[in-house]
Amino acid sequence: MERLCVFTGGANQSLARQICTHLGIKLSPLEISRFSNDNLCVRVLANVRERDVFVVQSFTEPVNSHIMELFIIMDALRSASAKRITAVIPYFSYARSDKKDAPRISITGRLMADLIKKAGANRVLTIDLHSDAVHGFFSMPVDHLTAVPLIAAYINKHMEFSKAVAVATDAGGAKRVGKFAAYLNIPMAIIDKRRIEDTLVTQGLVVGDVRSKTAIIFDDEISTGATLVATAQTLALAGVKNMIMGATHGVLCGQATANLASTDVEKFVVTDTVHIEDFKKTDQLKILSVAPLLAEAIKRIHTGESIGELFENGKLPRF
Amino acid sequence: MERLCVFTGGANQSLARQICTHLGIKLSPLEISRFSNDNLCVRVLANVRERDVFVVQSFTEPVNSHIMELFIIMDALRSASAKRITAVIPYFSYARSDKKDAPRISITGRLMADLIKKAGANRVLTIDLHSDAVHGFFSMPVDHLTAVPLIAAYINKHMEFSKAVAVATDAGGAKRVGKFAAYLNIPMAIIDKRRIEDTLVTQGLVVGDVRSKTAIIFDDEISTGATLVATAQTLALAGVKNMIMGATHGVLCGQATANLASTDVEKFVVTDTVHIEDFKKTDQLKILSVAPLLAEAIKRIHTGESIGELFENGKLPRF
Amino acid sequence: MERLCVFTGGANQSLARQICTHLGIKLSPLEISRFSNDNLCVRVLANVRERDVFVVQSFTEPVNSHIMELFIIMDALRSASAKRITAVIPYFSYARSDKKDAPRISITGRLMADLIKKAGANRVLTIDLHSDAVHGFFSMPVDHLTAVPLIAAYINKHMEFSKAVAVATDAGGAKRVGKFAAYLNIPMAIIDKRRIEDTLVTQGLVVGDVRSKTAIIFDDEISTGATLVATAQTLALAGVKNMIMGATHGVLCGQATANLASTDVEKFVVTDTVHIEDFKKTDQLKILSVAPLLAEAIKRIHTGESIGELFENGKLPRF
Amino acid sequence: MERLCVFTGGANQSLARQICTHLGIKLSPLEISRFSNDNLCVRVLANVRERDVFVVQSFTEPVNSHIMELFIIMDALRSASAKRITAVIPYFSYARSDKKDAPRISITGRLMADLIKKAGANRVLTIDLHSDAVHGFFSMPVDHLTAVPLIAAYINKHMEFSKAVAVATDAGGAKRVGKFAAYLNIPMAIIDKRRIEDTLVTQGLVVGDVRSKTAIIFDDEISTGATLVATAQTLALAGVKNMIMGATHGVLCGQATANLASTDVEKFVVTDTVHIEDFKKTDQLKILSVAPLLAEAIKRIHTGESIGELFENGKLPRF
Amino acid sequence: MERLCVFTGGANQSLARQICTHLGIKLSPLEISRFSNDNLCVRVLANVRERDVFVVQSFTEPVNSHIMELFIIMDALRSASAKRITAVIPYFSYARSDKKDAPRISITGRLMADLIKKAGANRVLTIDLHSDAVHGFFSMPVDHLTAVPLIAAYINKHMEFSKAVAVATDAGGAKRVGKFAAYLNIPMAIIDKRRIEDTLVTQGLVVGDVRSKTAIIFDDEISTGATLVATAQTLALAGVKNMIMGATHGVLCGQATANLASTDVEKFVVTDTVHIEDFKKTDQLKILSVAPLLAEAIKRIHTGESIGELFENGKLPRF
Amino acid sequence: MERLCVFTGGANQSLARQICTHLGIKLSPLEISRFSNDNLCVRVLANVRERDVFVVQSFTEPVNSHIMELFIIMDALRSASAKRITAVIPYFSYARSDKKDAPRISITGRLMADLIKKAGANRVLTIDLHSDAVHGFFSMPVDHLTAVPLIAAYINKHMEFSKAVAVATDAGGAKRVGKFAAYLNIPMAIIDKRRIEDTLVTQGLVVGDVRSKTAIIFDDEISTGATLVATAQTLALAGVKNMIMGATHGVLCGQATANLASTDVEKFVVTDTVHIEDFKKTDQLKILSVAPLLAEAIKRIHTGESIGELFENGKLPRF
Repeated sequence: MERLCVFTGGANQSLARQICTHLGIKLSPLEISRFSNDNLCVRVLANVRERDVFVVQSFTEPVNSHIMELFIIMDALRSASAKRITAVIPYFSYARSDKKDAPRISITGRLMADLIKKAGANRVLTIDLHSDAVHGFFSMPVDHLTAVPLIAAYINKHMEFSKAVAVATDAGGAKRVGKFAAYLNIPMAIIDKRRIEDTLVTQGLVVGDVRSKTAIIFDDEISTGATLVATAQTLALAGVKNMIMGATHGVLCGQATANLASTDVEKFVVTDTVHIEDFKKTDQLKILSVAPLLAEAIKRIHTGESIGELFENGKLPRF
Repeated sequence: MERLCVFTGGANQSLARQICTHLGIKLSPLEISRFSNDNLCVRVLANVRERDVFVVQSFTEPVNSHIMELFIIMDALRSASAKRITAVIPYFSYARSDKKDAPRISITGRLMADLIKKAGANRVLTIDLHSDAVHGFFSMPVDHLTAVPLIAAYINKHMEFSKAVAVATDAGGAKRVGKFAAYLNIPMAIIDKRRIEDTLVTQGLVVGDVRSKTAIIFDDEISTGATLVATAQTLALAGVKNMIMGATHGVLCGQATANLASTDVEKFVVTDTVHIEDFKKTDQLKILSVAPLLAEAIKRIHTGESIGELFENGKLPRF
Repeated sequence: MERLCVFTGGANQSLARQICTHLGIKLSPLEISRFSNDNLCVRVLANVRERDVFVVQSFTEPVNSHIMELFIIMDALRSASAKRITAVIPYFSYARSDKKDAPRISITGRLMADLIKKAGANRVLTIDLHSDAVHGFFSMPVDHLTAVPLIAAYINKHMEFSKAVAVATDAGGAKRVGKFAAYLNIPMAIIDKRRIEDTLVTQGLVVGDVRSKTAIIFDDEISTGATLVATAQTLALAGVKNMIMGATHGVLCGQATANLASTDVEKFVVTDTVHIEDFKKTDQLKILSVAPLLAEAIKRIHTGESIGELFENGKLPRF
Repeated sequence: MERLCVFTGGANQSLARQICTHLGIKLSPLEISRFSNDNLCVRVLANVRERDVFVVQSFTEPVNSHIMELFIIMDALRSASAKRITAVIPYFSYARSDKKDAPRISITGRLMADLIKKAGANRVLTIDLHSDAVHGFFSMPVDHLTAVPLIAAYINKHMEFSKAVAVATDAGGAKRVGKFAAYLNIPMAIIDKRRIEDTLVTQGLVVGDVRSKTAIIFDDEISTGATLVATAQTLALAGVKNMIMGATHGVLCGQATANLASTDVEKFVVTDTVHIEDFKKTDQLKILSVAPLLAEAIKRIHTGESIGELFENGKLPRF
Repeated sequence: MERLCVFTGGANQSLARQICTHLGIKLSPLEISRFSNDNLCVRVLANVRERDVFVVQSFTEPVNSHIMELFIIMDALRSASAKRITAVIPYFSYARSDKKDAPRISITGRLMADLIKKAGANRVLTIDLHSDAVHGFFSMPVDHLTAVPLIAAYINKHMEFSKAVAVATDAGGAKRVGKFAAYLNIPMAIIDKRRIEDTLVTQGLVVGDVRSKTAIIFDDEISTGATLVATAQTLALAGVKNMIMGATHGVLCGQATANLASTDVEKFVVTDTVHIEDFKKTDQLKILSVAPLLAEAIKRIHTGESIGELFENGKLPRF
Repeated sequence: MERLCVFTGGANQSLARQICTHLGIKLSPLEISRFSNDNLCVRVLANVRERDVFVVQSFTEPVNSHIMELFIIMDALRSASAKRITAVIPYFSYARSDKKDAPRISITGRLMADLIKKAGANRVLTIDLHSDAVHGFFSMPVDHLTAVPLIAAYINKHMEFSKAVAVATDAGGAKRVGKFAAYLNIPMAIIDKRRIEDTLVTQGLVVGDVRSKTAIIFDDEISTGATLVATAQTLALAGVKNMIMGATHGVLCGQATANLASTDVEKFVVTDTVHIEDFKKTDQLKILSVAPLLAEAIKRIHTGESIGELFENGKLPRF
């Protein structure tokens, strides 16, 4: 592993450090500063010639600044003759812009994929993209990991429930929830958000049978939690017994803490793909770490071992 | 329109001719032949210098041969100094390969998008891609039309039903069916294809309320109809009143004719994005034409008028 | 001019509006918003098919967000089939990162040039890049205008002085000041910032004759004004009669307002390439507008007239 | 050789297996299937991360399907992080489309070279391209082997003749036959296919002296054998003693078997660059194997030894 | 034609001027100079924004300097916002490097095609490339004209002969001579340059019947004329009645004038694709002009008329 | 070092040989010849498969021919499967064309950077580019060395002076001289070349204090020495005690030898980045070798050691 280096931008420093711990190496040093005109300046502080370099950076708030940091770090590494650069993006937020559902908008997920390449990335390592097809936006090899088995395994082991149903917050999430439900071997339901009649505007309609069951809401990310509040109300009206929620990316922005607390959801199980500040941590929130998963993937990318094996047969992972 | 030319490969000659009729121009001539070693040979038989050229070709059986035809036609046009080449692909079949759901497979939808560009396309005009994100696979402007309002309008006008529900054949189709249901202002349901218990293997589970309703199954394409047979049985067991099906692409390959006839579905409403041979046409099958839609889009692309307007406000189109 | 559109990002809205006034057209509408996860979302609100589109955006604070806005606007325009996209960047701040003066840093000016192209720009229109060679970072046509004659003409006409000398704030600015001095037909001097002896650390050394003269300090930008304070002190020690300063880009960030007020410089003549908030405007600060210059250039780019003529023979411009 | 993998498409499975035997490795597994809509689906069944991968596929009937297979296999390998992909194309059929001898046609040989690269190939290994210049169509390293010495050596050793002449079937083949004749140290002749007088339409004219000699016809490929029938008649009329034919690629399509049998040519010496079905094998047909040649080239590409040495001094090869 | 501009490098100034005369426009001005360090400097002296620009330059001695001139002229035009740049290369000398006939050499014809594009060309217009496949080296549209009918028509009309034979100077030229012979409706022969027996080293062997006929030697270019001297001797020994020679490119370098004079060839018919200095002009040398042909092609490229029509049906052109 | 190869073009053969001596390897063989039509032909005479290859070539007279040599050598190496190609360009002359200081000219430094890449270079190794920003013209890693400390160290050790001043020959050189002056810890001055008054046309004006001091003129290159003659006269008039000159590139073209001899400059200290013929060597000229510097850099590039360390802390190098 002597020619392997891991760097990090400002978005996930603690995750990057944990990854390094799992790899048994030190985080490589770099210096990020700003000129008085707000321009970023990056200095890589270790020799990277002919090294296999990984740069950890999630696209979290301030998103554009963090993305630009990643671009400039990679450009510095490339011009410093790194042998290969892998952008490790645990949370690739612009993946939500994956289609053109209004005229004259940008499919920004694709734009970012192109810019990441232009800025110097040779590969990408990421977790639970908003939709699987976003993988195809990249014109370089992508290792697309999933934390779904990790979350499913945690819920399976630590949460008590007899009759459960996996719930998607909208029709677009049905496929993701279908996979999640398969891991837990439970049925599924979806919230159909359309306006059905004039008097039923803000409420979604529950498609599927949830009455007297434990509803395990599942989504790729929790951001402000605003839609979640509505979803929880809809499910309560539909007569669920209790609620749990799982999501890979705990973005938790804006009024998230207050919104989450206001619901009857017993537990929110997320991962650390997004850095969560201490003040947001509550008993209601369980944070699982993807550091072992990312460390294992980095090791295998570096040595040329199969990553597919990690996920074969839909088995729950050993982490 | 004097500098506008429309050519066609072998896959949709009658559709191409109808498009030209709507545009008030003649189909431009080309000659496709094969050398004795099975290599394709294309001769463009009209001057295309500085012309705005559209090539119509669906990716239908034999798929690879039809795709290669498109590539070679576009290469011939490009080297003959066409000003701009738009690949008009009413049915882009490889869009179904839009993700990596097994290790070491190709996201062939993206590969095709890249090859289409390399072969000379400057733009793409297509209809109802398998998933919206496939739009983002292309690194050139794409006009992605939809025939969903066309089909919804037909069903609304010509089919009789009081209480209806739109049904997705699997979780992955939930989003598409959600939009379709919105057009018709009816609720939705989905078939959850997972194996729930050991004794219920081949049957899907209906998520949502379908009992005593007219089930309007909706999908992007009907290929062999095999899954459809299973879906119809599942819905019958769930107590639907009767069934109708809508789909943009009537691929109708293999045992499709027999399979469709064997179900209790009253009507299959599809479009002519795929050429349907006469022997497959039955009373059970209604074929709507996308020729007016494509002709209008081609005219607007050529003259620089907005195409977004065609679909604004989710209104049904005037065709 | 009917196929000409001007859009603007958030950085220079008033400048963009003035440009449109000079062109006799309306600013084209677009909508920039943020999702709850801090991702930008751009909707272009006018048909741009086959239009010749210009997007005005300076790289001002918050720099990375403004750059990303430009990228996403251009991507939306490109996918909406704009015929040609010109990025109008009155202040291209990353141009200062134009060399590798430390190991393992990024030449970010070049990186930005590459990303601007990748995001959809076909041309660039800019003013007074930090060094002339930055023009060569772009792999597309660049119209590189200068506001130096504008500033020189203003000083010549409105400021009184008998014996003047143009002063560069460091050796790197000597060439720029040489040109400026030539416009005014006065000699030049430079501040040599190196440490000459151990006891003379923070002070620069004046190279050239400034005693009893009006020193006209000239630079490409004024950011915090911190170095300017030192320069003014150095010049005062060297016995100048009085001081004026000219600079194209009035970045005026951080403690700029206080710093400028603390010096004995009588007048700061800048332009509006950077938007200057009202509270920063004082009698000491004269802001000239580049709107007529940019409008004229946009008109000529659109119609194919020469822009070189605008600057021929080193004559002061007619604006 | 532990990081060397050889895969094969459907066109030359037995050749690929023989190559592996010569290399002392096993053919790596992959699975090619078709979806019901005729779309190809490829699953690579071995870990290829950081491996040096070779994919064997000739462009034989069905040509377009075989080419697409190669593209999709390479795309799957690339996205599975293969270190380097070499397309081994023993018979590159589209090389015959190497010029624009009519207006508005495609130089499809060049198009295929571009698509092969876009689909993921880093290198190409091929044998006896239709013209040497086709090598220049590729924008990546090509190892262009020749089987001419192999065929010449066989004829020299196993066929009896005293006075022989090498014959080109048309003027375009003169150069190839010139080289072949040089290997055997015999004179050459060509068939000039033009219409010389009004009464001599279908017959070619023999340029050169063939009377009472053994004519050794040489070409790059034998496809239907139709032109060969005419050539043999022309040579018979010109008084040759007897005839032998050599060609690298035994395409043998259409009525080839019947056509070959109908001529007085004693022996056809070809190689196995194209898979020849058993029913086409006759005493008249001698098939030499290029497997040792390809295996040796693959070994040298993998280890970095010279391939040029294999052909130095125009010597016959040791295989 | 008001937006059409023709520029020229230093290689063919008189040809460029004649082309302009035929087009009824003035040659556009530019200035080529050299800095003291031998670096070229080009100043374009006319506004070319949005213009359709053609640059005439043959690759004649000093070849590398003339090529670099073309590159720098095109780069200046591109950065000056020319709308489209067509490199008009009447004699593309590196086309002779079109294959790899020795290990580790460059296929320089392809390299030049790539560099021409990189330097800014959008199209190429050229005449009689050494081999037809060189057309395929370019990744942009090429109009590949031929002067063969021009030369054939001249010989047919002005030279007297009863029984003639077209002669290729080596096997590689057989195809070109085949076409030439077809224009004149005469048979062909080739000189086989290989060493047949130990005592016949330097002489070639005549393949075909030339005795008592007028030999019309045909080639793409005449450079030093050294091989021609040998060819003429070989043909004389073979008993030809008399000799004429045709070639598109009269390179006439080194001892060409002396060599040509030393042969018994009565007339050399060439064109002005290469500038021929006055001192090389003799009664033995007939120079036909390609200026009308190039002017017509430029006009058609500019206006979008067919160029293929110029050569249809193998008819002699009207120039 | 067994997989390291160094080749050279015709421009710096002795320097390349010295580099090899320092590396302890032999210069790898290649053969450069010209066809009769002045086209270059390169044959690489050593196996380079999977080798790490460096090609030494300065851009010296005849510049265009030497550049083309480099292009063709690299293309041959690339197609011969070299693993990595580093263009070692000790003197990159076109770097002087680094801006657009007149309308419609080429920024040829950027054009050359692009062509070098297109021709096959993966990296560049160069010394003292005319301006630091030229580094940013390259879209591949560049190791940009400097010989300034080498020259400064020589002057410091071998030349005697008490009060010295570093002099830039024009404002554009101020920055370079600033760095040089910092190495020697002396003040600086510049020659301001503008016409100040009507009677002072050809003379420059000295900005800074040079009276009675040793003027150490410093520039990046000495070409004809013409401006140097003027500079020396200007400095003499300004009362300097004596003069020394340092420059990295001793281009010494045209009347350089005579011009240098005609000045009162005591010593010219240059390096061997440009090959200097014996007849130009005089006692006045001291030539330092960059061979150790380049050899060390090549070694570090090959093995992946840091090159930045060579220049850290502004220390004089150990060579």
